[in-house]
Parts: sequence; C-alpha cells; structure tokens
Amino acid sequence: MLHTPPALHPLWSSLSLERFSGVSLQDQITGFFRTAIVSGRMPRGRRVPSSRQLAQEHGISRTTAVEAYERLIAEGYLVARPGAGVFIADRLPEDMQHAASGAAAAIAGPPVEEKQVANQDGRNYQLPLAPDMPAIDKFPWAAWARLTNQIYRERPLNAIAYGDPQGELALREAVVEYLAVARGIVCRPRQVLVMSGTEQMLAFAARQVATQGSAVCIEDPGYAFLHHTMAGLGLRPVAAPLDAGGIDVENGLGDVPDVRLVIVSPSHEYPLCITMDMARREALLAWARERGTWILENEIDGDYRYSARPLTPLYALAHGQRVIYCGSLSKPLAPGLRINYMVVPEERIDSLRLGPTLAPMLTQLVLARFSTSGLMAAHMRKMRLLYTKRRARLLEALRVEAGGLMDVANLPDGGLRIVATLPLEVPDMLIAQRCLKAGLKVDGLSRCYVRAPRRSGLIMGFASTPEEQMRPAVGMLAAIVRQVIEDTA
Amino acid sequence: MLHTPPALHPLWSSLSLERFSGVSLQDQITGFFRTAIVSGRMPRGRRVPSSRQLAQEHGISRTTAVEAYERLIAEGYLVARPGAGVFIADRLPEDMQHAASGAAAAIAGPPVEEKQVANQDGRNYQLPLAPDMPAIDKFPWAAWARLTNQIYRERPLNAIAYGDPQGELALREAVVEYLAVARGIVCRPRQVLVMSGTEQMLAFAARQVATQGSAVCIEDPGYAFLHHTMAGLGLRPVAAPLDAGGIDVENGLGDVPDVRLVIVSPSHEYPLCITMDMARREALLAWARERGTWILENEIDGDYRYSARPLTPLYALAHGQRVIYCGSLSKPLAPGLRINYMVVPEERIDSLRLGPTLAPMLTQLVLARFSTSGLMAAHMRKMRLLYTKRRARLLEALRVEAGGLMDVANLPDGGLRIVATLPLEVPDMLIAQRCLKAGLKVDGLSRCYVRAPRRSGLIMGFASTPEEQMRPAVGMLAAIVRQVIEDTA
Repeated sequence: MLHTPPALHPLWSSLSLERFSGVSLQDQITGFFRTAIVSGRMPRGRRVPSSRQLAQEHGISRTTAVEAYERLIAEGYLVARPGAGVFIADRLPEDMQHAASGAAAAIAGPPVEEKQVANQDGRNYQLPLAPDMPAIDKFPWAAWARLTNQIYRERPLNAIAYGDPQGELALREAVVEYLAVARGIVCRPRQVLVMSGTEQMLAFAARQVATQGSAVCIEDPGYAFLHHTMAGLGLRPVAAPLDAGGIDVENGLGDVPDVRLVIVSPSHEYPLCITMDMARREALLAWARERGTWILENEIDGDYRYSARPLTPLYALAHGQRVIYCGSLSKPLAPGLRINYMVVPEERIDSLRLGPTLAPMLTQLVLARFSTSGLMAAHMRKMRLLYTKRRARLLEALRVEAGGLMDVANLPDGGLRIVATLPLEVPDMLIAQRCLKAGLKVDGLSRCYVRAPRRSGLIMGFASTPEEQMRPAVGMLAAIVRQVIEDTA
Repeated sequence: MLHTPPALHPLWSSLSLERFSGVSLQDQITGFFRTAIVSGRMPRGRRVPSSRQLAQEHGISRTTAVEAYERLIAEGYLVARPGAGVFIADRLPEDMQHAASGAAAAIAGPPVEEKQVANQDGRNYQLPLAPDMPAIDKFPWAAWARLTNQIYRERPLNAIAYGDPQGELALREAVVEYLAVARGIVCRPRQVLVMSGTEQMLAFAARQVATQGSAVCIEDPGYAFLHHTMAGLGLRPVAAPLDAGGIDVENGLGDVPDVRLVIVSPSHEYPLCITMDMARREALLAWARERGTWILENEIDGDYRYSARPLTPLYALAHGQRVIYCGSLSKPLAPGLRINYMVVPEERIDSLRLGPTLAPMLTQLVLARFSTSGLMAAHMRKMRLLYTKRRARLLEALRVEAGGLMDVANLPDGGLRIVATLPLEVPDMLIAQRCLKAGLKVDGLSRCYVRAPRRSGLIMGFASTPEEQMRPAVGMLAAIVRQVIEDTA
C-alpha cells in the first residue's frame, strides 16, 4: 500500500523565500499568503499545510512558520480548526470593507456557474438516441482495469517517454490482425499509423497526398465539417453528390479539375449508410487510376454488421495502390479512447513526416492487449447481439410512437445509427435543438449537405440506449416533431 | 477476480458461415482456414480455438467442427498437441511446393526485421543525455496505478464517450490552480483548453488568430519545424532573430509586413534557454498592441526552475489581452502522457470551433487527481532536487571529459537541457548521428536555425540520465566529438 501524502496545494512549492532580500522571512510568508488569498488564487475554505510542513519544505525554523500563521490568523486570513488543521478563511477582512459597495463578489473567486462550460457537445452523446455511440453502459471496466494494471506492472517506458511516433508496435500488429480477419485487407505493421481523432487523421492523410490548391472530393451528404478542415489546409473541397449506389464518378466528379483526393466511405457512408456497390467501386478506382488521384477510404464507423457480409474494401480491390485506409480500433468499444489507425501503401511510409504520436500511449498498449487476447472479439460479438436487439427496439418504437410521421428509409446492414427522413420543409435542426433541451441527442440530416438538394431528417442511434429507455425516448421525440411541424406549418 | 477467456484470435468471430449457400459448412470452415493460413493472415504456431469453442460460437454441431479440424490436420495446416490444443502448423504444405523456387519466404508472414519500424525517433529519447526528457526512471507508477484504479471504479462515462471537447473540467481546474500558483496567471477553467501534442496545439492556436497568407514570427534559433507547420496552414512563417535578451522587436520584427502572430518562449526559449528580459517583454507587448498582433506564449518546457524566480509571463503582463498561453501539465512528469493546455482570452472562447478533444480522457482524469491531490507538487519538488544533482553531474562530466572541447554558455535557471557550443565549422548533426549509433541521444544546435548566422553545438539533457551513467555517457560523447573534429579537419 502506498503512503498518501496529505493533500497539499501545489502552491506551497512555489513560495520561494529570499534569505538576503532585506524583508524578513515571516513578512515574505505573510505577504505571499495575503496576496494569494485576496486575489482568489488560493480558494477560500481550503486547508493549508501545517506549520511543521511549511517549515520542513522551505527549510525555515518552525517558529518562523508558526509566527507567520499566527499573524495571518489574527488578521483573519486563516482560521485554525483544532484537530483538523489550518484553513483559508471563508470570509476575508476585505469582504467587510467591500461589502457596502457590493464589490465582494469580485474577489470571492469564480462564480458557481463556472461549472457550465462553454461547449458541452461531447457530453450530449451520453444522452438517449445519440447517433453512432456504442453501448458505453456495457464498457468492460473490470477487464480493462485488469489489463491496465498488467501493463503498469511492466512499467513500459514507451508509454511515458515518447514511444513510437507511428504508434506502438503491439497495437499496429493488432490492427493488421483485425484487418486481415474482418476486412480481408493484407498489410504489414510498418504500413499502419496510429492516430487520434478522425479529423486529425483525415487532415494528416490529405496533407500527404494533396498539393496546395488542388481539389478534394467529399461525399455530399457527408461529414460537412471536412470542407472546413480541408479549406484550412489550403485545399479546395468539392462536394461529390451521392445516389443510392454512392459516388457516381461519371455524373458526379467528371468535370472537377485537379482532383488529388477523394474521401469516401464505401461500406457505410455517413449519414445515410449508403453502401457503394461493386460496380461503383470499380468505376471509382478506374477513374482515380486514370487521373492519378488518391482515395481515402474511411471506415471509421463500419465495424458492426448485422446481416450481409461487407463488400471488399477499395484498399483490397486496388491492392493498396493509391488508397489510404482509415479505421478505428477504439470506436466499436468506446470512442473516448480515441485510437484510430490508417494504412498507407508501403512505398509511402518512409516519406511521411511523423511527429510524436498524439494517440495516448498507455491506452494503445491496453487496447492492443484487449484486441490480441480475444477480449475485443468477444465484446464485439456480445455487442452485436445487443445492438440487433436495440435496433429492433428503436424501429418498433418509431413504428408505434411515430408511425406516419417519419420515414425510415435505407435501413443499413451495419453501424450504430439510422436515419428517419421528414418532409423537406420540416426544420430538422430545430427538432434536434429542442430534443437536446428535452434530454435527447439526435442530429439533423440537413446539416450534412453542402449543396442542394437538401433533405430533412433525423439521425439517431440505438446502440447506447438501454432497451427500457427506447419507447419513452422515441415518444418524446415524436411529440417534439409534431410540435415543430405544428409551429412551423 | 475476473474470468479470463482463453486467448482467442479475433479471427474466429469473422468466420461467417452461410447455411444455404450450397457449400457444406465443413467445406466453408476448411476453406476459410486454408486461405487465412496460406496468406499469412493467421500466423504460424498460433493456437486455434478448440472444436468445442468453434461449434459453440458459430452454432454448428460439434461433429462438423471436429471433422473440419481433422481434415485440416490431415492436410498439414493444423497440428494437434495433446493436452495443449490445436495449433497452426509451423511448416505448411505450400512450403514444400515452393521450397525449391525459394518462394517460401513470401508466404511465411512478415519477416523478423518487421520489428525495425520506419521511424523510431520517439524511442531514442529513452537514451542517455536525451534533451528535455524528465526522469522517466522515477515515474510514480504505484501512485499512478492507485489513482487510475480509483477513477476506473467511478466508471466515468466522459472518459469512454466523448467527454468535454475543451478538456475535462477537473483537469482545467487543476491547470487554473497550477498557473495561479506557479506563474501568477489568473484565469478561469472556461478559458483553458486541454490538447495533446505541442505542434497540434500551436497549429490550433495559429488557426484561431492568423488569417491565410499573414505572417507568423518564429524564434530563430527555435523550433524550426514550426516553419513547416505554419506554411502547411497557409501562413507565412518568418524567422525572428534572437540576441541574449530574446526577440528584439526594433531590430528583428520592425519591417515584417502583416504579422498576425508571434510565437515566443520568453521564460525558457528553445534551444538556448534565453530568458527574455522585462524590458524586451514590455517592448514586445507594446509593439504587438500597436499592430493588433497576437502573441502565443509557449512555456511548454519551463516548469522546472533551479534558482531565480521566473519573470512575470507575458499573459499576466498583458492581462490576457491578445496573448494565448501554452503549457504542459504532463511534460514535467512524463511527456508520453501528452497533455498540454492553452489559456485563451475569455472573449475568444465562445468563437472557437472545438472538435472532440484529442487528449486522452482517462489520462486527463488521472492527471487532474494527481495534481489536485498534491502528488504532482510533491513529485516535482523531489525531481527538482534530483535534477539539480544530475545537472551538476553533467556539468562536472563535461568539464572533466570534454574540457576545452565544448563551451557551456548561458547556463539556464530552469528546464531540462543545456547547450554546449562548438566552433562553427564542426558539423554538429554528424556528431548527433554518430551519438545515436553509439546509444546516446543529443540534438544538433544548427538544425534549430532557419537563417544565418548558424551556430554549431549540442543540445543535451540531464534529467533522465541516472547519475552513474553521466560520466561514461559524456566520455563517449567527447570521444565522438574529437573523432568528428579530426575526421572533418
């Protein structure tokens, strides 16, 4: 059992006493405390170190420390609570002076609503119906803790120093294994790059193959934020329209000049879950080959399948020629682990400029072991059953609670979301907003479009929503949709 | 105690059997195995599930599974080892056919040198003399494990879902406390952004305040890679020359048009550890105010101080007006944790476009507790004593082993590196290269310069090098320097 030192504010280590400054040590200590307390830097009510600790840590006599504390107590900045220690006062001398002028609040430290942080978007994904969120209520905490402790006992220097900028080898080996098995992709660990967020990864890939000012085609509807990302890199984002078979190069991309990159999700497009058929895949590859265009195949959220076997990935069809494959090893388990990977053609690896990896290294090691031990496969098997059930429950709830209100077209074979479409005039973003206020997380379909014709609809998830919450959640959603239709009619 | 399932290859879950396909289940199983084994996707020597497991997991009869295995054993793809299980054969039937033509290697899976990954730069920082590396040999594994398990027991959904894109509140509060105490910076948690790598953070900050094509001034010598990063964002990087007092706006920046951002490390510049004096700080702030230029104050590696109190940060001098402050909460402990932070003026926060955070969320929570519990302060106090000792040991070793060979100018008050300068004609990068071959990590000074006059020298660290290794390491370094001087004379 490790000895826990008493909870010391990091402050005390910064109190630097000057021995020959002409100011007595006691005055230096009291001055330091007064300033820190009045400025709010030392929060009220917090325990300060004992005079003994203060003396020891700063190499001063106990008497000096005791006398400094006594003065601060006498002045009202500190309060001694026998048996508990010395604390910063809850009310300060300055409060009295300022009380009349109402200025007390200004020195009382940050207000309580500080907890309301500016951007809570991430947390909303814990709400019912959150799209693309796996069952975080079923996260295997015990197994994860066991593997973590195993790794900690091995004290891996890689994880606390800088590690491999390409990602830890153990994890890259796990990715190779997973891809061989699940996607029929044959590659080697040296072709795998471990990265963190999706946007970061796609930006990195784009920088490798696209030249300043060249065009990057992005599915429309799709991840609209990528237009912003790519423009920020000095590239020219172009919306590539989709039909039921995915990108149609003949009608969609034919006339775009200087395309250096097409970002595409053939197995499970976002948000409509369109699967690109084999003919379209071949056509896209032929078109790209002809022009020397790169393809970035994004399968970040296509790991769960419920019926048909997935089609062969573009990467495998092209034998890795001018295709970069992107996936995630953490998203099927818990997106917050933030571990994605990218497979790069062998001949490009040595020319990549890699900085230290951004993917958390301890997590990389734990995840690698979770995967190679078979725990990941077992978890995904269990989840697939659970998700089949939860998906059925969502569809049933939509039928019962929202029958005739929304249309669930294009029910996908995989993934963790469905899209319910609405008449074009219904403002889906307003519904999404009202849902959020009511404690539900759905996304509006229209914001996924960059160019007309837009569609209206709701993107919702089923995987993270416990079965018993599905009916009430969808009931609430249906009520909101009806209300919005009425309000805007 | 958790039940550990036997180590199953994730492969088995992907074996998808089609009941009405016209191919018998046994044929499907054997076909799947043969292809996977021959392609190298299933590595040789690996255990496969028992026939009982195979039957259970795929809902087939035990007999079918047993017969399929028996066929594969008979064909030489699998080997049964009584009492141990069934394994993939070490030598395959195909080896025999191809042996004569020498093609066996091609199907024998990745070669052993696969372990030699393309870019091992990160790992080199575990070698003696690695610059800026804290004492990873003293990482508090036990305390870290204890806090990790504490967090795991609380099952924080934030850490596995998406969490707060700004960074977990607990960690932002810890940053506010640390800055108040250690740097005299008063800010609020909502101004703090938690991020991952330094380059990512600086790029994010630059994108917020600089417009396409505008100039970004970067210290020279400094982080030369930033020129590449900023150019990649469509900005115009400009080298700002330094003298002993840091950036001199009069002589260095006066004539650069359209400067939107100056990136500066006033307390502890990289690599020369120049401290910008107070007059220069005031001059830079006045200059920036006049032009509406932003300042990015980078104190990523200035946390350890050995003597003088640090000067007031630009952020505090400017009351946060047009200054963004960047630091790291993990670098003083273990850079591999990869948790940096950025303080942004209050009025800019709401206009930031935040994606999901890239900083590992579980690590954020553990680090927050490590900091607020006082363990971080205690660790840093201990390390400061250790580093004082290790620094003295390095200087002594340089005097004894390399006296007259290199000049240790500008010994800094803080940080984890020193710079030994060499006559300009000595090729420092060649020395760095030879050191690496000999198992030492030092950096060349010349590569930190973007424009003339360059200096030659070696950047080396002391904090991660155990005391007893210091003399031998410096002895080896001195021998290499002498050899290079001789070779290139």
